[in-house]
Parts: sequence; structure tokens; C-alpha cells
Amino acid sequence: MTQQFNQNDKRSLSIHKKYKGKISVQPKVKIKRALLQQLYTPGVAAVSRVVAADTKKTNEYTWRGNTVAVVSDGSAVLGLGNIGPEGALPVMEGKAYLFKSLAGIDAVPIVLNTQDTEAIIACVQALEPSFAAINLEDIAAPRCFEIERRLAESMRIPVMHDDQQGTAVVVLAGIINALKVVKKKKEHVRVVIVGAGAAGSACADMLLSYGVRDIYVVDRSGIIQKDAQDAHKRLLAERTNKDGRAGTIGDAFKDADIMIGVSGPGIVTEALIQTMASRPIIFAMANPIPEIMPDVAYRAGAAVVATGRSDFPNQINNSLGFPGIFRGALDHGVTKFDHTMFVRAAENLAKLVSRPTAKKIIPDPLDARVVKAVAKAIH
Amino acid sequence: MTQQFNQNDKRSLSIHKKYKGKISVQPKVKIKRALLQQLYTPGVAAVSRVVAADTKKTNEYTWRGNTVAVVSDGSAVLGLGNIGPEGALPVMEGKAYLFKSLAGIDAVPIVLNTQDTEAIIACVQALEPSFAAINLEDIAAPRCFEIERRLAESMRIPVMHDDQQGTAVVVLAGIINALKVVKKKKEHVRVVIVGAGAAGSACADMLLSYGVRDIYVVDRSGIIQKDAQDAHKRLLAERTNKDGRAGTIGDAFKDADIMIGVSGPGIVTEALIQTMASRPIIFAMANPIPEIMPDVAYRAGAAVVATGRSDFPNQINNSLGFPGIFRGALDHGVTKFDHTMFVRAAENLAKLVSRPTAKKIIPDPLDARVVKAVAKAIH
Repeated sequence: MTQQFNQNDKRSLSIHKKYKGKISVQPKVKIKRALLQQLYTPGVAAVSRVVAADTKKTNEYTWRGNTVAVVSDGSAVLGLGNIGPEGALPVMEGKAYLFKSLAGIDAVPIVLNTQDTEAIIACVQALEPSFAAINLEDIAAPRCFEIERRLAESMRIPVMHDDQQGTAVVVLAGIINALKVVKKKKEHVRVVIVGAGAAGSACADMLLSYGVRDIYVVDRSGIIQKDAQDAHKRLLAERTNKDGRAGTIGDAFKDADIMIGVSGPGIVTEALIQTMASRPIIFAMANPIPEIMPDVAYRAGAAVVATGRSDFPNQINNSLGFPGIFRGALDHGVTKFDHTMFVRAAENLAKLVSRPTAKKIIPDPLDARVVKAVAKAIH
Repeated sequence: MTQQFNQNDKRSLSIHKKYKGKISVQPKVKIKRALLQQLYTPGVAAVSRVVAADTKKTNEYTWRGNTVAVVSDGSAVLGLGNIGPEGALPVMEGKAYLFKSLAGIDAVPIVLNTQDTEAIIACVQALEPSFAAINLEDIAAPRCFEIERRLAESMRIPVMHDDQQGTAVVVLAGIINALKVVKKKKEHVRVVIVGAGAAGSACADMLLSYGVRDIYVVDRSGIIQKDAQDAHKRLLAERTNKDGRAGTIGDAFKDADIMIGVSGPGIVTEALIQTMASRPIIFAMANPIPEIMPDVAYRAGAAVVATGRSDFPNQINNSLGFPGIFRGALDHGVTKFDHTMFVRAAENLAKLVSRPTAKKIIPDPLDARVVKAVAKAIH
């Protein structure tokens, strides 16, 4: 791992060192002798008796009802890959920082010293009485699919993998408005998704739930098939490629209306975009280097271009999703997320841009209306 | 579980409900657009690279260096017994509240949905990259001994079970000053410890480390023997009863100088205390009802009486110990606790009472000097 840093990196390192991270635990009331026998022994025993008798009351009498665990095994951190739990911690703490700053949620970064699927599942299940919800984060595919599915099924609190469902909600919101800009209908567009990992799979499922019918998911070897080696890709193909269409990346791009890149640079070329249908929508979301740079995409004929970066228009950023998604789940007592909620959240998010244009399909992450609009959908 | 509440209980319930618990997560800096690219992407990637390359640096660049997990399985909560993890949560949150209010430590309550020794160990081990230290709490004996020992051995961060070592440090501090009051020497006193659970065992070990030589640990069936059924009690007898002395509770009390009660009401009687040596020291620490009430103990000849209660003099309270113990461990980079540190901490704590008297052997938990004095010892 080379340790070369630009100016922003250096500022980031110095801020993190100065504050020793980004979050702290704070008492809700100042300590006073008179309060100790209520906040702690002997009075706290009464609270323990009440919540032991009716465990849901932890949400009323403790911080649990507003508290989310941000859990990672450090296996797929940002664009850095499998850098381990310690490497993941600054990112998880950053999520916790955003949870509180944007949505008033108390979030705790939990990075795990294991990358074993069963061990992760057992540990997160054991944490259930401590938290009101679980935000999984930066867990590598295909392990992330089983972990998310089994935890969501087995726990009585909502569980989401932000790199799957969180990303997909924001992508769908952007697509909804981009379709308005190019005046195309969801029922008639063909979508090519480049990347069959956590985000690619979840985007495919979210678009299907929204009513998009024609989706190709591709990886470096072409269109994902039902005979793929990887079990996850086989299942994905059963959902997205029922007709068993085969072909190269080039075949998938030809006449497609929308390209969603959730892979990395080097696959999507100017020439490929030129083969797409007229006025194509290009979401090039790899970070920090998009699959194709916006100016190149526009030169190739793109009508709308979005990326994951804050220095270009149309930043598709997860922070538009997860704070409101969890705010809504906590406020409305949701115990399981489902696609209806997520699609509704994307629609609410899209509606915040009253007149979408090619340069403005998605709200700003610091727009104060975002969390409320998304939260309203999660019920 | 009967739900009868006194006035203090009712006030406690109402405060907990009003504030929804006692702690929250707070951002260390206010959110601003200009800061986002340093606190979060893309700048946070530089921090992730730095700490992934040298994982100890999580303590410099994230909140980890000041963060402790307060972990319980809810199996031995206060005097309430095995009320489960949800019932334990208000107590663990209370500990986190005290950690921050008294020692500036960010502590996170973690209550686990399992009471299986192996599952608890695996889960706490997995949490290692998230925390700088582990405070185990309210885990039932004998399971707590194996859990504490194996975690302390296997983890690279310090692990302590507060009901064992934390309690024993404060008890030892009280005993040190009580011995000054009655003008007896540690080498010459006989101690009877009533209760062979977490606190009783740890107090025995701590007194041995301090230099007390003559200790009887008793439970309802008499002096703990090397042929006890329970493996933990056998090991305890090997440490405290090498000569294989046998006898009833009455035999153990006869001519003893110190009684440490960490059991419950009903065993220690006025008649038993009358058989002790002259000017006996009585620590009756069961909560909320001491093994023997102070007025009864004094009537039976006690020279110094301490309890766990705030409404009597000489309150032996854990909050005199754990905040400073962990503050010291974090400040001095301690990776394993040992008895030398604990004995030193007890001595420092005792020294804060410059002229011990029968009614004043231990400092007040809100005495601002306590955390510093204890922390100084943990290195």
C-alpha cells in the first residue's frame, strides 16, 4: 500500500489526529450526587425490571431506540479493498458521524476481527439487544449477500447492507429523474449494469422492483448467465436474465438507454457509449475514478451523466439514503426493510428536485429536506 | 418479577423515559460541506490506509483509543440475577454514563443475546478492533472466571470483569484504611470472606496479592475446600486454603479480624460477629440489603463497618475503581491488567483519605482526585 497523499488527504489526516476521530459518547444529563441514585444504583434496578419484563421497552427507557450499529469486517472498504477491520474503522466512524449529524441517530462503529460468514452472523445476532437496527457496510461480495439475507431473516430489528440497498435507493432516485430529463419511460428502457457485486446486484433488484423490465448485468466476461460459476451470479441471472441472453459487454451496451457503472475504470469506453440508444443516461459511480469521465461521456453522446464524486454535478452519494432510511425505520418501528419501502424512498428523494435537468437530477446531501423525505417512506 | 416501585424507583423510571436513556453519540465537529471531503470520502481513505498499515494508529486517528466496551450477558445483574441482556442494558448504559462523566472515557454498552461461554468469548474477541479495552460486567459465576481469563489472555487490549477486579480494588482500599483505624497489620490478620462468587474470589486474590496471609472463603456450607464439587471453588481453595482447613461458617468467623460479605442477607448474624477477634472490621456489601445492618454490627462489637450503600458511611462503590482503572490503562497503553497495578490502585485510593476514621475509610465517588489517583497506578 503506497502512502502518497494529496493536499486533501493531508488535511484529512491532520483533522482526524487533532480530534482523535469524529464522534464521542456524551452524557444526556450532567452528573450530580442527587441524580446518581436514579441514573445508577439503586434506581436503575427499577428500569432493569421494567425492560426485562417487556424487552421492547428498551427503546423507551434506554438509548437503544435511537441507536444503530455500523458493522463491517473491513473486506471491501471504499476503493481500497480488503484492508481489514482497523482500516475500515475511520470509514465506519465517518458513517456514525453522518448518522448523527444528518439524522440525529446515535450510531456505533463496530469493526469485526473476522471475515468468516458464520462468525460474523453469530456476532451480529448476539448484538441484537444492544441496538435498534444494523447497518452493514463494506463487506465483500458474495459473502455480503448471505450475511445480509440471514441476518435480516433472523433478527427482530431491521438490517440493511448500505453498499447494496442504500446505494440502490440513491441510484434509483437519480434514474427516476434522469428518465424525466430524457423523456423515456421505465417500462421501455434497457439498462446495462456494469459490475455484479454488492451494488450492481442490489441496483438490478431495485430497478426490477421499480418496474424496469429489461436489465443486463455484465462483468468483465460479458452478460451474467444462469450457468455462471458463482452461485450468487447464477441467482442474479435468474432474476435479471430469464431469457438466457448471452453476449459480450459490447452486445449488452448496444441500444441500451441507461448504463450504471458500479465496477471500476477500464471497462466502459467512449466507443461503447456511442453504440447505446439515443440520449443515453450514464451513471459512472466508481470512486474515486469513475468508469468514464463526464466530459468523455458527454462527447460520446450522453444526455445525463452522474458520478459518485462531489466535484461533478449529480453526485450519487449514499449519504442521501442511509440516514433517512434508518431514521424512518426507528421512528416507525420497522422490523424488516422491504423493496416497497426502498422504492418509495427513492421516489420521495427524486421528488425533491422539482424540475430535473441534465445537471440536476438529485438533491444535495446537506439539503435539510432529504432525511425527512426518505424517512417518510420507510414504514 | 413483581413491579412494585418506591419513590426513588419512580423518579428513576421517569428520568430514563424523559431522556430515553443516559448517553448519546455526538459529532466532535459540526458538519460543514467543506469538511465532508476530509471527515468522509475521499479524504477518509487516507486515514484508512494509514491505520490499515499500522493498526495501533487507530488509537491516534479514530475514537478507538478512548473507547471502552461495557459488555454483559445479563446473567447476574445487580441483585436481580439472570434477567437477560435487555434488563442489563440500563445498568451498562449507566456504567457508560459514569465512564464519561467521571473519567472522560467514551464507553459503549454491549449486551449480548447469548449466555454461552464460547459464544461470548468469540463475540468479544471479534470486537477487538473496535475498542481500546473491555469492561465485562454482571456475568454470572463461575462462567465469568473462564470468560475473563481467556479474553484477557487472548486479546491485545486490556480486559477486566468489574464484579471481580473492580470490586476487589475498592474493597482493598477500604481494608487498607480500616486496618489503620484498628491498628492491625495485614500480615497478622485473619479474613473471612462470605461468598465464593465473582467478588468473593477476586477479593481473596487481591488480599493475597496485597500480603494478607490468612483468608477463609466460606459459602453456605462452610469453608471452601480443595475437594469442592465446583471446579472454580477447588481452584480458589488451592489459593486460599492450602492447609486444607475444614469447618463451618462459625469456625471461620471465630477470632477473625475482618469479615468481607459479598453474598446476601441471612448468613452473617450478630452472634457470629461476637465470636470474632477484638475490634473486628465488617464489610457487609450485599446490595440493596447488607449481610448485616451497620447498627447491629456495631452493637456486636465492630470497630469499622462499610457497606455498598450511599445512605451509610463508608460506601464501597465500584465507581471508585473502574473509571480510573480504565483511564490509566488507556493513558498508559496497558495491554494486560495485573495484580500489581490493582494493589497500587487500591493503595493510591486509600491514601486520598489522609486521616482514616471508623466513619471515613474511603473517598467519595465524586471526589475529583479519585480518577487521577487510581489512573496513576495502572501502568
